[in-house]
Amino acid sequence: MTKTRDPQYHRLVKKLINTERTQVLKSLLDTLSPNEVTSILLHLNLKQQLAILELLDQEQVPLVLKELQDSSTVLEEIVGQFSAEQLTDIVEGMKQDDAADLVSILDESQVDAVLENLPAKSREELTTLLQYDEESAGGLMTPHIVSIVKDETVSEAIQEIQSYIMRQGFQMFYTAYVVDEYRHLIGTVTVTELLLADRQTKIADLMNPDVVAVDEDLDQEEVARIAKEYDLVVVPVIDKHLKLIGRITIDDLVNVMEEEHYEDIGHITGTGTEEVTEPSVLRASRDRLPWLVLGLLGGFLTAIVMNSYESAILQIPEVAYFIPLIAAIGGSIGIQSSSIVVRGLATGAIQTTDLLVRLWKELRVGFLNGVVCAALLVLMTFYLTENLQMAITTGLALVVVVCFAAMVGCSVPILLKRLNIDPALAVGPFITTTNDIVGIAIYLAITFNAPFQTLSV
Amino acid sequence: MTKTRDPQYHRLVKKLINTERTQVLKSLLDTLSPNEVTSILLHLNLKQQLAILELLDQEQVPLVLKELQDSSTVLEEIVGQFSAEQLTDIVEGMKQDDAADLVSILDESQVDAVLENLPAKSREELTTLLQYDEESAGGLMTPHIVSIVKDETVSEAIQEIQSYIMRQGFQMFYTAYVVDEYRHLIGTVTVTELLLADRQTKIADLMNPDVVAVDEDLDQEEVARIAKEYDLVVVPVIDKHLKLIGRITIDDLVNVMEEEHYEDIGHITGTGTEEVTEPSVLRASRDRLPWLVLGLLGGFLTAIVMNSYESAILQIPEVAYFIPLIAAIGGSIGIQSSSIVVRGLATGAIQTTDLLVRLWKELRVGFLNGVVCAALLVLMTFYLTENLQMAITTGLALVVVVCFAAMVGCSVPILLKRLNIDPALAVGPFITTTNDIVGIAIYLAITFNAPFQTLSV
Repeated sequence: MTKTRDPQYHRLVKKLINTERTQVLKSLLDTLSPNEVTSILLHLNLKQQLAILELLDQEQVPLVLKELQDSSTVLEEIVGQFSAEQLTDIVEGMKQDDAADLVSILDESQVDAVLENLPAKSREELTTLLQYDEESAGGLMTPHIVSIVKDETVSEAIQEIQSYIMRQGFQMFYTAYVVDEYRHLIGTVTVTELLLADRQTKIADLMNPDVVAVDEDLDQEEVARIAKEYDLVVVPVIDKHLKLIGRITIDDLVNVMEEEHYEDIGHITGTGTEEVTEPSVLRASRDRLPWLVLGLLGGFLTAIVMNSYESAILQIPEVAYFIPLIAAIGGSIGIQSSSIVVRGLATGAIQTTDLLVRLWKELRVGFLNGVVCAALLVLMTFYLTENLQMAITTGLALVVVVCFAAMVGCSVPILLKRLNIDPALAVGPFITTTNDIVGIAIYLAITFNAPFQTLSV
Repeated sequence: MTKTRDPQYHRLVKKLINTERTQVLKSLLDTLSPNEVTSILLHLNLKQQLAILELLDQEQVPLVLKELQDSSTVLEEIVGQFSAEQLTDIVEGMKQDDAADLVSILDESQVDAVLENLPAKSREELTTLLQYDEESAGGLMTPHIVSIVKDETVSEAIQEIQSYIMRQGFQMFYTAYVVDEYRHLIGTVTVTELLLADRQTKIADLMNPDVVAVDEDLDQEEVARIAKEYDLVVVPVIDKHLKLIGRITIDDLVNVMEEEHYEDIGHITGTGTEEVTEPSVLRASRDRLPWLVLGLLGGFLTAIVMNSYESAILQIPEVAYFIPLIAAIGGSIGIQSSSIVVRGLATGAIQTTDLLVRLWKELRVGFLNGVVCAALLVLMTFYLTENLQMAITTGLALVVVVCFAAMVGCSVPILLKRLNIDPALAVGPFITTTNDIVGIAIYLAITFNAPFQTLSV
């Protein structure tokens, strides 16, 4: 009953395809969840992928393609092979919001053909959904929603739900939305309440008027945050006239949270929007290259700075040996401060107005760790150079570099947020590159200009 | 109806506390969600926090403290000020799983006092929950679960649910779990199905026997993955005898996903388990220091490597100027490869058996970007040194460093995963430190030993 995934499935599946044991393969596929089939598809080539999709139950195909939407390049290749009739069947088997996502990656001629094949009502609904920004509440919602009118009795409401299900097919739902005669959203009744209520009770007497809804244009991140804040399993969507137009379910919001997670990590690690399943080496390279060029330019500036100290470095080359260390520690402190601030901004624990408070805290944390690291560095430098004055100067320079790095790491994300730019951009390559250049410049300026530095080792 | 958070609330609240306008403050607090109150509390000192909690509705306090569990040091300070009676009231107002989390941070004498004050049944349930690992399914679950017996009719089942709600208080629920006479979990019936079914239907005829459940000891991450895979809003928990013992709701699983997210980012950025709301500078420093010491040791080894090339560096100091650049690019490539692999391992798109396939892909991506960066580096080196041979050698060295970095970045997470160590540990400080040392060693070895390197600038 408990499910665990066998990592070896895709090897077995490949073997079954190659030996053409179609019957065995089909029985195996029937026992797998859409998500498991998707994992297997990601390990196969296009021809094998199409063979698997052919063998699947017709109802499974839309669910598998939905799961594949996280790997858009793979999905594009697959749907490129489908006929308009096949695509229409798939679109009809999907929830409307997922169908809209799928249609949005088709090429224009395919979109037209699919829309033409659809029944008029579905076509109209889909066209409406396609107009929303994919990352807005409207782009996430499905227009199918169980609504009941406030003047009905429980018994009438149940009949209405029954006829809705007759029309649209059975769906799990948790909350019925109560509307007035103009379809304004005015309250909610949970299914549990409907189940337990006396059948003659008026909906208006049963409903909870404290309803949380989101505007159709609200950004999906904000929708996820509201669902989390109010522990909602379904979020109703309203238009500009406060009329109920759709609902967003928690499974879609969980996907949004996951996307945001990987977007953050992409910024921090300099992998941009690259997908794990990206099959093209060229595209993966292109997604990563900008961050490397940034590092390259930073490195070039650092080389120019060092070049300007050439005669000093020739006199005391030991100073240069600690440059990678200074860069590494400055970079680490910057990343630490910035990532804590970015996390706080995301959860709301830090506000953009907290700049000074936060700066003071990060400065103290950075200074404290800087002093500990500097003490170790003094010992290391003395071990390598046997020059106490140089060792002390190097340690002092590290403390200054560290305080600078903590200040940059703390203030840049807050300033970005004030300018409405994603603060996560500040964690990673930007901070480390800035800290490399300025940190090394500070270090060289201090070690070569300290009044108590004797220029002999 | 649509809710947005005002970042300035905490300033207003502080003002109201200072000017003792208690009535206004209370009316303001009554309009806020528990999450909003929590955000405000994080901006106040302990005395102000206690003043706010005193003013809140008694039902609000447990909800606010639940939200505060992400900021455990703040929460510990607050509950330290509560009497055993106050704590008992709060624990009784919480869902059992949240209550267990709260009790687990109390000190021993407080725990004993609270358990003593609780009614026998709650005490017993709580003691059972406290025995589970906090990060297991058992630690997440609440033991209150609506179960119905397979031989009942719909009408009997509804009565049973009614009497359950009479005993436990009203709860929203979505799915009733069907058990046999030994309390083995054998199926599910959604509330929608109960609502629409004929009241004389047997539950056994209505139920869906394909039920997904998790073992009480399963790790919370795995539980979240299963809920996501099967789009579950509630996950039932079974014991070793397949008996139904509790349920985990999606709001707790969303918190688990968020925790994992911040844990990953903590590893990558070297901030460990530090909380954004950590008020102590000392504790924040302690959480970050180990990663800095790691960088310090790496920097020391690099300095030793450079020291061994002293005479060569004195002859061509320009070689040293590009060391920060080599370290930065090697580090970036390592982080890029490792983060893509870690993400793939987390989503299942990459298996530990894919080592060679993945190595080949990362090597090609790294090589391609390495060649582009090397071309730019050749131009930069030539600009700075006007020595074409040195420029070409430097570029070649970069390509070798980059290929090495891509291989380390790709293989270390896969090897860690094989050893059952969290692969996310490999992204960040570990990879950059390794790549700094080895990358610089490779660079120096190549540039100073290249047969076509003329040792004059």
